[in-house]
Amino acid sequence: MSSSSTAMRIGVLWSGDHLYPKVAETLEMLRSKGKQLVFVTNNSTKSRADYKKKFDKLGIRAEVDEVFGSSYSAAVYIARILNLPAPKNKVFVLGESGVEQELESEGVPYIGGTDAAYRRDIRVPEDFDNISNGNMLDPDVGIVLSGLDFHSNYLKTAIAFQYLQRGAVYLATNIDSTLPMSHTLFPGAGASGAALERAIGRAPLSLGKPSQAMMDAVEGKFRFDRRRTCMVGDRLNTDIQFGIDGELGGTLAVLTGVSKEEDFLAEGATTVPMAYVNTLGDLMG
Amino acid sequence: MSSSSTAMRIGVLWSGDHLYPKVAETLEMLRSKGKQLVFVTNNSTKSRADYKKKFDKLGIRAEVDEVFGSSYSAAVYIARILNLPAPKNKVFVLGESGVEQELESEGVPYIGGTDAAYRRDIRVPEDFDNISNGNMLDPDVGIVLSGLDFHSNYLKTAIAFQYLQRGAVYLATNIDSTLPMSHTLFPGAGASGAALERAIGRAPLSLGKPSQAMMDAVEGKFRFDRRRTCMVGDRLNTDIQFGIDGELGGTLAVLTGVSKEEDFLAEGATTVPMAYVNTLGDLMG
Repeated sequence: MSSSSTAMRIGVLWSGDHLYPKVAETLEMLRSKGKQLVFVTNNSTKSRADYKKKFDKLGIRAEVDEVFGSSYSAAVYIARILNLPAPKNKVFVLGESGVEQELESEGVPYIGGTDAAYRRDIRVPEDFDNISNGNMLDPDVGIVLSGLDFHSNYLKTAIAFQYLQRGAVYLATNIDSTLPMSHTLFPGAGASGAALERAIGRAPLSLGKPSQAMMDAVEGKFRFDRRRTCMVGDRLNTDIQFGIDGELGGTLAVLTGVSKEEDFLAEGATTVPMAYVNTLGDLMG
Repeated sequence: MSSSSTAMRIGVLWSGDHLYPKVAETLEMLRSKGKQLVFVTNNSTKSRADYKKKFDKLGIRAEVDEVFGSSYSAAVYIARILNLPAPKNKVFVLGESGVEQELESEGVPYIGGTDAAYRRDIRVPEDFDNISNGNMLDPDVGIVLSGLDFHSNYLKTAIAFQYLQRGAVYLATNIDSTLPMSHTLFPGAGASGAALERAIGRAPLSLGKPSQAMMDAVEGKFRFDRRRTCMVGDRLNTDIQFGIDGELGGTLAVLTGVSKEEDFLAEGATTVPMAYVNTLGDLMG
C-alpha cells in the first residue's frame, strides 16, 4: 500500500442504485495522484465479493482487496489478532451470508449463520434442556459473532447466550442501532443483536466504525501511514469519529448522508471534520 | 378487598412442577387470618386463567382474580389508566398468547402477537417498502406492547419500530433480562424486546415489577391499604424493590430463589427486606 491513502465510506458513492455525480471520475482522479483507496462499510450482510459486483454494475473500477466491510473486519480480527488456538476457535454466527463468506476467506471455522437448522421456533421444553445440558452446543465454539440478522430468532439468541455464559469471546461486526431503508429507519445490527447483549449484560467488542478495533483490523491487513490517510464519510458519529479516534491525517465530511452542515458547525459540536464538501464529486473542483 | 393484604411472587410457591414444602397450608393459614392474597408474577406468557389451571393442578386453592401477572397488569393499564380514545387504542403485540388473553379480558383490541401472518421472514425489498409507506400498517394502532416472545423476528420488530416512529405509546409487560429455565439462564422479556428498544433509542414503560406502574395497575383493580400490605418475594431487585418503592408496610424475602442471605446482609446492600425466611412454609412456625 502506498503511503498516501483515502479511506472512504461506501455510502458516499451511491444511494441504492443511484450513483452520486462524478463519482467514477473523482475516484480515478485520486488514483492518478497515487492515493491508495480503501472502501469502508459497516454493512455486515454483504461480503467484499458482493460489493465488487455492485461496483462493477455501477461502472466504477474497484478491486475486492480495496473493500473493507465490518464482516471482513471481524474475520481479520478473529484470524490475525485474536487468533485463538484451534480447534477452540470456532465461531457461532448471528448474521447473514456476508459474515460467513468473510470468515471462510480468512479460514475461520463457523456454525450458525444461515444454516436452516437454526431457522426454526424453539421447542419447549426439550430445546431448553438440550441447550442447558450442552447437547445442542458445539464444544469447539470459542467466539460468538453478532451482525445484522434478518433471520434473528429466540433459538439462536438462546444458544449464543449459552455460549457466552460458558465463556465464549463476544464480538459484533458493528452496533449501528438503525438501518436506513426505503426512506425510513429499520432495525440495524445493534438492534438485531441487542437481545443477546441485554441477556448477558455487557456489550460486544464491535469491529465496525467507529470502533478502533476496525482500524486495527485495517492495519492488520494493510500497512499504511495514518498521518497521510484521510477518512471520507457522511456520518459524524461513525465515519468522522472513526478517523478522529484513529488519529488520521484528515477527515472529510460529505453532505449526501444523514449528517448535515449544521451538525458540526453548531456550537458545542463534539465531532468536527477537518473539511467538508456537498458531494464527493466536488473534489473534482 | 380486605385492608390487610399479602402480595406474593408466584415463584415462591413452586419451581416447575415442584411445590415448596407446606405451601398450601401456609396460604390457608394466611387466609384464615383474613389476609387478602394477590399472586404477582412478571411472566407475561401465561394468562391468569393459565395460572389458575396450574394452581389447581398442584392442589392449591386460588381464584383467577387473585392472580396479577404482567400481561394483565399491562391490559389494566391500557384499558383503565391510559384509556386512549377508540378506535386509536389498538395494540400491536410482541408476545405470546398470555398477553392476548389478558387484552381480551379487558376488551382491548390488538393485532400481531401469535398471528401466523407475522411469523415469517422479512421479504426484501417489498416488506421494507410496504412498512415504510404504511401499506402493512394498521392506522388504528396507538400502542406497542412488548413481552417475552419466543417467536420474535425481524419482521415484527421492524413493524413495531415503524409504529413507534409514527408516535405509538411504548409499553412492556416487563423488562427482566433473563429467564431462569432448565438450571441455566435464557433470554427474558427485556432481551426479546431489546431489539426494538435499541432501534428506537428509549426504554418502554414497564408494567412488571419493580415498576410502580404495576403497583398503580394493582390499585386500578383492587383498593388496598399499602401500609397494611406485605410483599413476599425471592428476588431483591424486582420483588423486594417493588415493595419498597411502593411504600408497602412490609417486605419479606424468601430464600428459595436467586437472591441469597448474603445479598442483603452485605455492607452497602441497596435493597434490604424487612424480614426473611428460608422457605415460604417457615411462616407456619
